[in-house]
Amino acid sequence: MDARFGLDKHVTLPGDFALAGGAVLPELTIAYETYGRLNANASNAILICHALTGDQYVASTHPMTGKPGWWQRLVGANKPVDPEDYFIICANVLGGCMGSSGPASIDPRGGRPYAMAFPVITISDMVAAQARLLDHLGVARLAAVIGGSMGGMQALSWAVQYPDRVGKVVAIASAARHSAQNIAFHEVGRQAIMADPMWAGGDYAPDAPPAAGLAVARMAAHITYLSEEGLTEKFGRRLQDRAAVSFGFDADFQVESYLRHQGLSFVERFDANSYLYITRAMDYFDLANTHDGNLARAFAAARCRFCLVSFTSDWLYPTTESRRIVRALNAAGAPVSFVELESPFGHDAFLLDAPEMNRVISGFLSA
Amino acid sequence: MDARFGLDKHVTLPGDFALAGGAVLPELTIAYETYGRLNANASNAILICHALTGDQYVASTHPMTGKPGWWQRLVGANKPVDPEDYFIICANVLGGCMGSSGPASIDPRGGRPYAMAFPVITISDMVAAQARLLDHLGVARLAAVIGGSMGGMQALSWAVQYPDRVGKVVAIASAARHSAQNIAFHEVGRQAIMADPMWAGGDYAPDAPPAAGLAVARMAAHITYLSEEGLTEKFGRRLQDRAAVSFGFDADFQVESYLRHQGLSFVERFDANSYLYITRAMDYFDLANTHDGNLARAFAAARCRFCLVSFTSDWLYPTTESRRIVRALNAAGAPVSFVELESPFGHDAFLLDAPEMNRVISGFLSA
Repeated sequence: MDARFGLDKHVTLPGDFALAGGAVLPELTIAYETYGRLNANASNAILICHALTGDQYVASTHPMTGKPGWWQRLVGANKPVDPEDYFIICANVLGGCMGSSGPASIDPRGGRPYAMAFPVITISDMVAAQARLLDHLGVARLAAVIGGSMGGMQALSWAVQYPDRVGKVVAIASAARHSAQNIAFHEVGRQAIMADPMWAGGDYAPDAPPAAGLAVARMAAHITYLSEEGLTEKFGRRLQDRAAVSFGFDADFQVESYLRHQGLSFVERFDANSYLYITRAMDYFDLANTHDGNLARAFAAARCRFCLVSFTSDWLYPTTESRRIVRALNAAGAPVSFVELESPFGHDAFLLDAPEMNRVISGFLSA
Repeated sequence: MDARFGLDKHVTLPGDFALAGGAVLPELTIAYETYGRLNANASNAILICHALTGDQYVASTHPMTGKPGWWQRLVGANKPVDPEDYFIICANVLGGCMGSSGPASIDPRGGRPYAMAFPVITISDMVAAQARLLDHLGVARLAAVIGGSMGGMQALSWAVQYPDRVGKVVAIASAARHSAQNIAFHEVGRQAIMADPMWAGGDYAPDAPPAAGLAVARMAAHITYLSEEGLTEKFGRRLQDRAAVSFGFDADFQVESYLRHQGLSFVERFDANSYLYITRAMDYFDLANTHDGNLARAFAAARCRFCLVSFTSDWLYPTTESRRIVRALNAAGAPVSFVELESPFGHDAFLLDAPEMNRVISGFLSA
């Protein structure tokens, strides 16, 4: 089998990689997984794009947590994105912390980790890095690119940046720009990290990260991934292993215990500086920005079919944002199908059991 | 004039003050303001209850910030709550940091600040402390008690705890219990404070507080006081004093700059330990709790008229929570008027210009 294909792959692509912000990386490393076989005319490739805290292990066991791939409900045998049919690629984003170039990478010019000297990146930089990976893999054109949340931002960007290289775009629970509220929540997370003395301007040792700050950032973000309805259903005001409140500051309530666990476990698998860079990339994201704020014009060059999915209880990337994209695509004359799915699980819905979402994607891919 | 009445008052009431959690304070200090004159039969007293980060300066210039009173739109000459007509009382809550007994108070038994040795308090304790203050002021019965947010929780509690001492209850943008999402956001704030090494288990010096942690807590909370719609209208993706993003971690966006300012200015006027205690009191709040979860039964003894107000874009204490209270009051046979007001300003709406709210309260008080 081709050594470029398979699990736990990484490649360092030499040569300057110019970023949207003007900086240049002297080389680009991308960590990725592929599933299935690239067919003879290289027409069956699907790129899966991950969200803020996701990674390349879309359908493989995570090497640090031992948990199943984060989208095995969608990607795998007898799933809508089946390696029997498709050559599936998932790469850790530029700026990430699972092997792709990011703030924890060694700057080849200095021999030390970049830390905060890593240049600020954008969603378009992430997509450009993916395009370089596709060149390396011999994939001139994607049958489809699929992503949820920040992954959806990348998917939409593919249609704008590389209109000739993608046939279908699936963007789930996503948006064409980050709202003021989205930016605000990210800023809280960044301030929580930077307020932690262990952060040390980004120059912390890998074994002494700003764990407390990153945990707080994760806790705040995690609330935004759920819905009020979902939290009430899952936890309500139920107490954690006790019959009455303690009149103290322990985690009396199940929801407190759950949140603390989310914060602590996140710290074990994610890099604080990466969190800063990726949230910043998302805040900067506004597809219409390079077209005088006109989203339809941003999509003017698109040559692909679009499928958008939103969830009723998602208040982080609400249906209104998907509708805004649909209107722009309509105005641009691009073929688009859109569905809002009922779910009480908020933004996280796209990562959970969502049979309707699977049917929609399956139908769209085979259409 | 009676020395008990007027501005910048405080009183230390000797004798044990027993708390809901079982602890006992050996004395109780309450800082308060009064406006207007108590009439001959002491029938014109109105108690205003403040929210989480409010204080007794409802209609007086804040001594630390120099800003006008926080509810001068409602309380003052020619306002619905006019000192010409009413004897108006507003006290810093038990657990607060503006002069009432709280974690920064000196424990008379040890001569040192309580800090985290201060007992955990509840909304019912706050209300019991207000009742002690009324005893001191010679007010046997309130014409009305009015509060928004946590102030509304106190107002509702008055009807339950002291049914014979209150004639009318106005609860605005409030709830009869804290939801899982409410608790979750508070827990994030507490964890941010406790993660700050300057917090030092609560034993920080007054001039060396856990400022970074408290600022993060305030930033996270502040987002919940606004609405997505309001944030978009006020800030959108507009940049702060620059023509283009900086590709860095400065406050590029106005919303970031605004949030940082909210965090920093809050630290100058609020005590971190008080923030822990008051948020905890709110989390513990569930009026139905002492009545087997039956809110109507909790209101069974109420003898007053109720007025509830909610705002369309308030997602922290949404209209559904007010409706739940209205249903319980209806079931309890209590007279209640309820109105949901249109506003794009989220939970904060009750503190902003709200002519309709003023009309509703004015009409309710004079009815």
